[in-house]
Amino acid sequence: MKQYSQMNKAELTDVKNEMDRTFSKYSESGRKLNMTRGVPSDEQLALCNDMLTCLCASDYISANGTDCRNYGGIDGIPEMKKIFADLLDLTQDEVIVGGNSSLALMFDNVAVNMSHGVREGLPWQSQGKVKFLCPAPGYDRHFTICKYFHIEMIPVAMGNEGPDMDTVEKMVSSDPMIKGIWCVPRYSNPTGIIYSDETVRRFAKLKPAADDFRIYWDNAYAFHDLDSQNAKILNIIRLCEEYGNPNMPLVFASFSKVSFAGASVTCMASSKSNCEYIRKRLTVQTIGPDKLNQLRHARFFKDAAGVMTHMEKHAAILRPKFKLVSDTLHRELDGLGIAGWTEPAGGYFVSFNAQEGCAKRIVALCAQAGVALTPAGATYPNGNDPQDRNIRIAPTCPPLDELKSALEIFCAAVKLASIEKCLRGINN
Amino acid sequence: MKQYSQMNKAELTDVKNEMDRTFSKYSESGRKLNMTRGVPSDEQLALCNDMLTCLCASDYISANGTDCRNYGGIDGIPEMKKIFADLLDLTQDEVIVGGNSSLALMFDNVAVNMSHGVREGLPWQSQGKVKFLCPAPGYDRHFTICKYFHIEMIPVAMGNEGPDMDTVEKMVSSDPMIKGIWCVPRYSNPTGIIYSDETVRRFAKLKPAADDFRIYWDNAYAFHDLDSQNAKILNIIRLCEEYGNPNMPLVFASFSKVSFAGASVTCMASSKSNCEYIRKRLTVQTIGPDKLNQLRHARFFKDAAGVMTHMEKHAAILRPKFKLVSDTLHRELDGLGIAGWTEPAGGYFVSFNAQEGCAKRIVALCAQAGVALTPAGATYPNGNDPQDRNIRIAPTCPPLDELKSALEIFCAAVKLASIEKCLRGINN
Repeated sequence: MKQYSQMNKAELTDVKNEMDRTFSKYSESGRKLNMTRGVPSDEQLALCNDMLTCLCASDYISANGTDCRNYGGIDGIPEMKKIFADLLDLTQDEVIVGGNSSLALMFDNVAVNMSHGVREGLPWQSQGKVKFLCPAPGYDRHFTICKYFHIEMIPVAMGNEGPDMDTVEKMVSSDPMIKGIWCVPRYSNPTGIIYSDETVRRFAKLKPAADDFRIYWDNAYAFHDLDSQNAKILNIIRLCEEYGNPNMPLVFASFSKVSFAGASVTCMASSKSNCEYIRKRLTVQTIGPDKLNQLRHARFFKDAAGVMTHMEKHAAILRPKFKLVSDTLHRELDGLGIAGWTEPAGGYFVSFNAQEGCAKRIVALCAQAGVALTPAGATYPNGNDPQDRNIRIAPTCPPLDELKSALEIFCAAVKLASIEKCLRGINN
Repeated sequence: MKQYSQMNKAELTDVKNEMDRTFSKYSESGRKLNMTRGVPSDEQLALCNDMLTCLCASDYISANGTDCRNYGGIDGIPEMKKIFADLLDLTQDEVIVGGNSSLALMFDNVAVNMSHGVREGLPWQSQGKVKFLCPAPGYDRHFTICKYFHIEMIPVAMGNEGPDMDTVEKMVSSDPMIKGIWCVPRYSNPTGIIYSDETVRRFAKLKPAADDFRIYWDNAYAFHDLDSQNAKILNIIRLCEEYGNPNMPLVFASFSKVSFAGASVTCMASSKSNCEYIRKRLTVQTIGPDKLNQLRHARFFKDAAGVMTHMEKHAAILRPKFKLVSDTLHRELDGLGIAGWTEPAGGYFVSFNAQEGCAKRIVALCAQAGVALTPAGATYPNGNDPQDRNIRIAPTCPPLDELKSALEIFCAAVKLASIEKCLRGINN
């Protein structure tokens, strides 16, 4: 395969004409394919259908005698606390089980730290312009929370072992207005990388200039392996304790992609002392999470081992989809010198890097041809990918045949956008 | 029955000695009775046990085709929106269905108005010292939200038709830092009164000095009648529209005391335009409420009429309890000139007024005798009942025999505290 950069104008024009014809056909076919978000497929959701019926009409008492139908219990029932604690290798008093949305827990935590401060500290908002480090590419909804609270987002480069820790250390230790950092430490959204032990250790050892600096450790894909090797990450809460930063990490986890995205349970975890602060606030804020749904989850999964066994069923459904992405990209794009991508062993995304200045065009071409992708730039703070290269591929939801079509169109779009770029280069 | 105020010292001392003996016996009996909060009883909760099994394993698609197991739908499924809209006499686009806690919706709304302002307005917190009018006696959790946000609470007297509207009108129209008022318009917590048509109309006609003033209309007992007369309140949203204040009211309702307090659905309602603002924010804040629990509620209740029929079953359980309160208080306290109380036709509470300076003593005496009551003062901002008179009686949870014992002890405590007061008066 000849690299596009080595083709002459005539060769490029030939390929372009061919791709234009291909695209006309795609556009006329009226397809509607969606790879925008990390959504579980019907087949995955069906794995939990028995959870809809797993409580009988007399099953509503939790392990500590709480009637889950009634008021009481601000931070979850013991069964679910134990499952989350076991999964995350924590104790139950380091865990607060919430409702359906871990995003809501994160938003809430940022909101409270802005308005009331961290523990006894001053409200962030009263201290000046609050800044967060944002490893990028990253998760757009983290960035949206920052934007909502007018928090300045400072992008930090993501590598294969996590964020660029030299930069993180330097900035966190020198600027007291840096109050937080967003991390997806395992199967990072979207790159799919896993933070190395060294990275996690360097996080735990941080010496923040701000004593109210917090690590937002969104362990969204904590149990979401594609194979059974179960690549581990180090325990950020234990390590932070060890290095004298016990209250620095705020860990979030979710069953949105374990049970039902539309009716799951979530948790936040932190030091016992942080959890005590948070529980006190929660009594002001809510009458508590849905305890019956927690009981439903506990009955269905039984224990942490039950969750991990269940996750293997998810993996069996997802592996062929990720393989199809990898196979298709290799087949269509290898040797053209126009793209790179990640091949994650878990999580929900493939991070795709086109040539500089091509991502928006690729997404637009796909849209014309009926394939919806996450907007180009969404993986960067303020939706601004300075190189316009990164595209998040979300292959989990479409059935395999639709995914196949979508990926073919995607690859054609990558080729066409790249040729257009080469031709512009020649013409200029 | 001779009024205590007309007894001489010897007579009072006789009664006191008798009551002291009675109390010693109570205290020795080791009772544990609880009338602290408005909690549904086991018998009420059991009315909904079939909801635990009402979804079968293939029932998860809502009326608009949404798969309730998956992501999507920020403001509730159409079935639940319709039920709430019909119950509140609103349209579906005036309703946002949330999760398990209406308190969380209220907290959230205050939080956002503090930090980001109302619609395009300035954040409340940036305008100076925010104040709320707090009709009192009122609901302690409303006051706790204000306290959390350092909002100054201005008590307003509650009458039989609602808050003292002369005061409300005067203050709201003259002070631009008054940004809100807490209302429980139907079976008010704790007095059980229903806002009269005139009161609701005067609310709708308010001319606030602040254009970002909001009425927090916590219609917590919207469907919670003790008899079938269904005393109505006027529709605050329609009336505000009519009087040119369409965005002023924020209405809250909850199924916590309809289905399961620990796993219910709640809603907020406001103008279509306000709801559009709120939906936009919710997409930043959460991936959405538990849709399967909404579907469960929709299947179980079917429609608004189903809810109202169900509420009659609650009423049948609660009527004897409220009757027992009324009968016992009349039997034990009539003619003594030491107490007054409300006799509500719905809701969850009886508001009891002792003689000035006696409420704390009564609650303490009850605690000694094993009867837990809502702390005296809790029904006033900052827990401070200036006259130390008001006690909230919550008769719904205990079984009838326990309620009988608790009320007897309560009445004895009222007598003893009143005698002590009379004796202090004579001795001074």
